[in-house]
Amino acid sequence: MPARQHASLRVDAPRLLERLRALAEVGAIDGGGVCRLALTDEDRDGRDLVVSWMQDLGLEVRIDAVGNVVGERAGRNPALGALMTGSHIDTVRTGGRYDGNLGVLAGLEVIETLAGAGITTEHPLAVAFFTDEEGARFHPDMLGSLVYAGGMSVEAALDQPGIDGTRFGDELERIGYAGPHPCPGLAPAAFVELHIEQGPVLEAEGLTIGAVTGVQGICWQEVTITGQSNHAGTTPMAMRRDAGYAAARLAVTVREIVDAIGGNQVGTVGSLRLHPDLVNVVAARATLTVDLRNTDGPALREARRRFDEAVHTIAAEEGVRIETRVTADFDPVDFDPSIIGLVEATATELGHSVRRMPSGAGHDAQMLARMCPSGMVFVPSVKGLSHNVAEHTDAADIEAGTNVLLHTLLALDALGTHDAHDAHGEQE
Amino acid sequence: MPARQHASLRVDAPRLLERLRALAEVGAIDGGGVCRLALTDEDRDGRDLVVSWMQDLGLEVRIDAVGNVVGERAGRNPALGALMTGSHIDTVRTGGRYDGNLGVLAGLEVIETLAGAGITTEHPLAVAFFTDEEGARFHPDMLGSLVYAGGMSVEAALDQPGIDGTRFGDELERIGYAGPHPCPGLAPAAFVELHIEQGPVLEAEGLTIGAVTGVQGICWQEVTITGQSNHAGTTPMAMRRDAGYAAARLAVTVREIVDAIGGNQVGTVGSLRLHPDLVNVVAARATLTVDLRNTDGPALREARRRFDEAVHTIAAEEGVRIETRVTADFDPVDFDPSIIGLVEATATELGHSVRRMPSGAGHDAQMLARMCPSGMVFVPSVKGLSHNVAEHTDAADIEAGTNVLLHTLLALDALGTHDAHDAHGEQE
Repeated sequence: MPARQHASLRVDAPRLLERLRALAEVGAIDGGGVCRLALTDEDRDGRDLVVSWMQDLGLEVRIDAVGNVVGERAGRNPALGALMTGSHIDTVRTGGRYDGNLGVLAGLEVIETLAGAGITTEHPLAVAFFTDEEGARFHPDMLGSLVYAGGMSVEAALDQPGIDGTRFGDELERIGYAGPHPCPGLAPAAFVELHIEQGPVLEAEGLTIGAVTGVQGICWQEVTITGQSNHAGTTPMAMRRDAGYAAARLAVTVREIVDAIGGNQVGTVGSLRLHPDLVNVVAARATLTVDLRNTDGPALREARRRFDEAVHTIAAEEGVRIETRVTADFDPVDFDPSIIGLVEATATELGHSVRRMPSGAGHDAQMLARMCPSGMVFVPSVKGLSHNVAEHTDAADIEAGTNVLLHTLLALDALGTHDAHDAHGEQE
Repeated sequence: MPARQHASLRVDAPRLLERLRALAEVGAIDGGGVCRLALTDEDRDGRDLVVSWMQDLGLEVRIDAVGNVVGERAGRNPALGALMTGSHIDTVRTGGRYDGNLGVLAGLEVIETLAGAGITTEHPLAVAFFTDEEGARFHPDMLGSLVYAGGMSVEAALDQPGIDGTRFGDELERIGYAGPHPCPGLAPAAFVELHIEQGPVLEAEGLTIGAVTGVQGICWQEVTITGQSNHAGTTPMAMRRDAGYAAARLAVTVREIVDAIGGNQVGTVGSLRLHPDLVNVVAARATLTVDLRNTDGPALREARRRFDEAVHTIAAEEGVRIETRVTADFDPVDFDPSIIGLVEATATELGHSVRRMPSGAGHDAQMLARMCPSGMVFVPSVKGLSHNVAEHTDAADIEAGTNVLLHTLLALDALGTHDAHDAHGEQE
């Protein structure tokens, strides 16, 4: 790796924190949280504010057919694709102020820092915010970046129904963010996203930076168990077809499977409901959800295979019917090894403790990874809380993460230019 | 046992079925069921109908301070206490037409059969229906018979709040069933109750009559588990405090305890709720109910001890807080051995298949057992269904059970007279 350019350059943390504070006022809710569900009036107001900041910074603002917004600062070499950073500014109903927003506003801070230092990169530098990352109003999550990367058609996206009976396309028009630019969008030269961890690992290990190696594959299943409602006093154990017991047994089995697979395998039964749900009635029906994730695709498939096996065993042994429906199914995404290495090296050079780690949550970067080398920088979440008004990341960690983003982009600019020059040379 | 008196006497099944049909029209609901919650207008209308039948039969009708109604036919020997039968006519919200009602109307049928045959028993013969057996509107269940037997004061009963914000005493006044007779009531010489099984055992074994040996002891507990809400993707398994998993583990442990105790031990987790109950969030809180029953008091206590032990183990191992609250706690009741034997012998002599069996549900007879020798006759419930509009018992089984009740009462009359004569002899 060449000696780092502009090695002493640092972002202006108070300026970034002030933008985070100002954006958090839009759709503010009790407890310090934010509610800006995608394509609501609050989302529009947040978008307007961020676009005004992009314009203040002299960026060229492009809005595409599903409302993704890209603000671009020109580079020295117009032949190069943009180095892109960014994230999302929509939130869940009881969201925090850092999830997504940090990645977008840190991108603006990087550009303002470069502008302030009179530095122009070789590549164009772009800051994007993608529509409906949370999926809390319109399914699926990461919808905007999925469409940007060509994984879903614009037509399909516009037709998505909202949980409130609305339609994505209508709401996009209504808030004035149906733009003229086509999807899939221009492929960046690389994409790097700064995000809060949303988990407890960095804090628990006393580390400042996560060099994200990839995003876990995820499988969600909805399980319906049908047994027989019976009197809890008069029905002998051997004559029961207890949907509630079968559900509990399945939930315990999920944990056993996760423990047996080991590694990064996680599994959760987060929802479980019984019917009729009475103290003295054997449950006739149970519904539960199973969330299985792993960074290792084959291991995740093995977990699913064992779960299917358990479903058959428990159905047979308990005399119940068990139906499963897959409601989410994403393969693991591996980030670009050179970007992972660059984030790790950059953090170390800047004096921050760092570890490589997978992401347990989905992010826009995993969609961008379909079209360009991509990676992520994590900073700690206090108590691992996210999707929660109490979500918090210390100012020092925000500053550290944004400096890592700045210098990672600068290093990519230097590397990318070098690679591009090579490629150009080969063409000649 | 002496040769059975009036051995060829049989009840008039069509007359009994007609009364069951007519009473089921009061508070009828879709599907053939009945809704006559205690002390509602529907309960009053049902009471009025049954009281009119008692009066038609020339019974002396006594109403006590909590609305229990006793219709008595005089015996030859005024010095003897009454042989009492009966049950209840209140129902749950989606009740069937046999639960309780059968025991009351079979009692009237027995009296009408005797009257038709010109037979007067030595003892007075009484048919009772007790208030609020179901406990579906006013806690506890079996309230009327509990007060009748002296297990609860009239004042406490009258002050019981209803689930609908009413007060027992006010509603009793309102429907005109606050009677002048005191509680505890007169102790009968014996009490025998005919009831549907409400469970699947007789039907599964192809038997007609159950000679009920006693009522299970029962312990209900409400369990609250407090863990930590976390992201299902980003939180490593080892860092979780998963209230949902702890709940599932506890439910599976209840089954393990029941299997280990064996015998008549049953255990049910009928209600289980998670919070926030979302696919991708580790549950912060779980509430569940545990219903443990056994005819064997020491075994039931052992099951509870093992459950308490499991609560402590699981709380420690899963890093969650578990609180338990006992919401029902009744010791097992053993019925009178001579009455159990009499029911069994009577069924056999009448040519019906019979088995001794415990009751898994609570019944008025268990309260009467506090004041006099008591027992019960069970007839099959199709598919074990009860507290359900689909509750059904075949006409042939109703007829068989009512004939067993008739001849059990006649045998008690003969035995009791014999005993009483002996006692009289000794007194002299």
